[in-house]
Amino acid sequence: MSLIVMKFGGSSVGDAERMKRVANRVVERQREGNKCVVVVSAMGDTTDDLIDLSKQICTITPPAREMDMLLSTGEQVSVALLSMAIQSLGQPAVSFTGWQAGMYTEAVHGKARISDIQPDRILKALEQGNVVIVAGFQGMTEEGEITTLGRGGSDTTAVALAAAVQADVCEIFTDVDGIYSTDPRIVKCARKLPEITYDEMLELANLGAAVLHPRAVEYAKNYNVPLVVRSSFNHNEGTNVKEEAAMEQGIVVRGIASDKNVARISILGVEEKVGQLAKVFTALAKEQIDVDIIVQSGVMNGLADFSFTVSLSDKERALEVIQGIRDEVGFREVSSQENLVKVSIVGAGMVSTPGVAAKMFEAISDLGLSINMVSTSEIKTSCVIDNSRLNEVIQALHTAYGLDTDSQAFVGGPAERR
Amino acid sequence: MSLIVMKFGGSSVGDAERMKRVANRVVERQREGNKCVVVVSAMGDTTDDLIDLSKQICTITPPAREMDMLLSTGEQVSVALLSMAIQSLGQPAVSFTGWQAGMYTEAVHGKARISDIQPDRILKALEQGNVVIVAGFQGMTEEGEITTLGRGGSDTTAVALAAAVQADVCEIFTDVDGIYSTDPRIVKCARKLPEITYDEMLELANLGAAVLHPRAVEYAKNYNVPLVVRSSFNHNEGTNVKEEAAMEQGIVVRGIASDKNVARISILGVEEKVGQLAKVFTALAKEQIDVDIIVQSGVMNGLADFSFTVSLSDKERALEVIQGIRDEVGFREVSSQENLVKVSIVGAGMVSTPGVAAKMFEAISDLGLSINMVSTSEIKTSCVIDNSRLNEVIQALHTAYGLDTDSQAFVGGPAERR
Repeated sequence: MSLIVMKFGGSSVGDAERMKRVANRVVERQREGNKCVVVVSAMGDTTDDLIDLSKQICTITPPAREMDMLLSTGEQVSVALLSMAIQSLGQPAVSFTGWQAGMYTEAVHGKARISDIQPDRILKALEQGNVVIVAGFQGMTEEGEITTLGRGGSDTTAVALAAAVQADVCEIFTDVDGIYSTDPRIVKCARKLPEITYDEMLELANLGAAVLHPRAVEYAKNYNVPLVVRSSFNHNEGTNVKEEAAMEQGIVVRGIASDKNVARISILGVEEKVGQLAKVFTALAKEQIDVDIIVQSGVMNGLADFSFTVSLSDKERALEVIQGIRDEVGFREVSSQENLVKVSIVGAGMVSTPGVAAKMFEAISDLGLSINMVSTSEIKTSCVIDNSRLNEVIQALHTAYGLDTDSQAFVGGPAERR
Repeated sequence: MSLIVMKFGGSSVGDAERMKRVANRVVERQREGNKCVVVVSAMGDTTDDLIDLSKQICTITPPAREMDMLLSTGEQVSVALLSMAIQSLGQPAVSFTGWQAGMYTEAVHGKARISDIQPDRILKALEQGNVVIVAGFQGMTEEGEITTLGRGGSDTTAVALAAAVQADVCEIFTDVDGIYSTDPRIVKCARKLPEITYDEMLELANLGAAVLHPRAVEYAKNYNVPLVVRSSFNHNEGTNVKEEAAMEQGIVVRGIASDKNVARISILGVEEKVGQLAKVFTALAKEQIDVDIIVQSGVMNGLADFSFTVSLSDKERALEVIQGIRDEVGFREVSSQENLVKVSIVGAGMVSTPGVAAKMFEAISDLGLSINMVSTSEIKTSCVIDNSRLNEVIQALHTAYGLDTDSQAFVGGPAERR
């Protein structure tokens, strides 16, 4: 007998029919002889509807505490209904809100981190033969305030619960049937990965493959929780996310990701003095602006050029910050560029295989494109390029690294329901 | 400075505009120098919508625990939004669910009774200058289960909270601007009562004047909480509900109520033996059938007739119960009658004023109607009559007891919003 945590997102429980389908899925798993804890999100558009309602009523920035009171009802509705659906199938079930499930968080509203889990009620209810249904995305502070975990929070709830109850596996049900080598909507011959490491998944998650929230993957890695990503619409094998993952013969790159939310800022003709870079990035950090890739070109006549990337929405603020320290730093000019994309190849084996990055540069050059910036880590290489021919680039890299497959990707439920 | 509990029902917060109007009302009261605790119900049709949703998903009798989980979200949405609306006016506010407000109840789902209130968080938040907004209709058991109080539960929440925080007054805002001598939709010249006693209100509440829930009135009486019933749509003086209420000169009847949910059952030719009545009513009680008026006619040839009333929905079951004890009791026949109405006059001064009931019988007779059954208590007299001319009867009684007035009743908000 296994103890399984199953997580279903908002689109998997988007209406009464889907809710019933999830109930069937859970009961099936329970009747195979497992104990099941189910984490669900709010139904379909519920969260957005509640936000709309608050906008009609609230003429100030919505107080974060009250937004948490408001939004946490969405998951509470889901767990109650799923419990009814499961009980309708003759299977005892009990639903818990975040606070009932013992999910304690920091005293931060809108994006709290889990600080502690006291799963006594969950364990007791499991022992009594119940399927236990827990509201995702929410918790409670020590002072009894309701909090939410922010976007992707239900994934984190599921993984953290799996760690707390020492589940054998945490299954994340979504509208794709696993993690793919790249976005199957872009590359038709994308391959589903049987396995992937936490670190690789983290890179892919951070790079915009939105299937799993990065915080949840981090949690899984820290507590060594085995994850499976699979479809809530079929019974295909999913993708196992774990500490070590086998590589197919001859393949060294696991996946290819891209991120269009990127702008480049270049500071040209910077006077060469000690601590110049530090001044710039300290000033940006003070304004909560995250900097990703940083490239410094060679020094000429005592003047250096350097460039870095920020997210698109931070671009204007970043330019203001830099103008604000012009006198202190001393530079000729600052420029910026949009219409860029960061393309990354990810694979845990890259570090021990020479020539992996070179092949990437070659594939991009063969398309007649120039590479603006490059960054590398042990398990990934990223290139910033013009975004006009992104799909061609991804397809070319996918082929170059031998990832193309013949089988058809499964994406989403019946088309008319999406 | 007064401490005030204000209660707003679902129609008073039915949409964004109404929610804002309530916020204005509360802030106005707070800025007069009062401390305010506000109890709200779910917005408009929210509760019914949630019940509909559960019917789409649940193919068994909905488990009461999960219904409470589901329905309690309605009030949680209301309190969060009202808090935002009040904060938008520059007034600090904080919302609490039932469990956060320390509302403890029995471990019964769907119609729990309040067992204890621990208002520490409310008092602390008030002290910090907040308007405190509490979700009506809900509480928590000692074991941390969410419960609801059943229909009319938000009134009870408000009154119980008022008792717990020792409020100076509990204001119940509704869509009429007070308690009327009778239903102003039936009698145009109904008069609004400046005052009414708890006992009178209890009779009127039980008799179908649906403005205040009987359980809330009972609570107010037990804890001597001064109530005011007033409109959420205007600033008219409302009706004070309290222990002792002044009577206008020459008026002894406070109000007239009617209840169409009544059926008469007659058992004819019952063998006269000790304990016959007890047998019948014990059998009915076992089936949870409430019996209201009981009339036994004289005995003839050792055979008695008796009649009693039950609510319409219980009629068929009551007849089955009586057929089931036919052999044990021994009677000639049983019959039943619908199309009846119970009309009642209520007034605390009746007991010390002779001839009050006689005037009632006379007024009904003058209309050519016969009286089927009569029941009296210290503060009321009820007659069961044919329901075909109810409005005429109420109008006639209203005139007979000198209750007619010239001023126009205010019922509800703008007509198009109802």
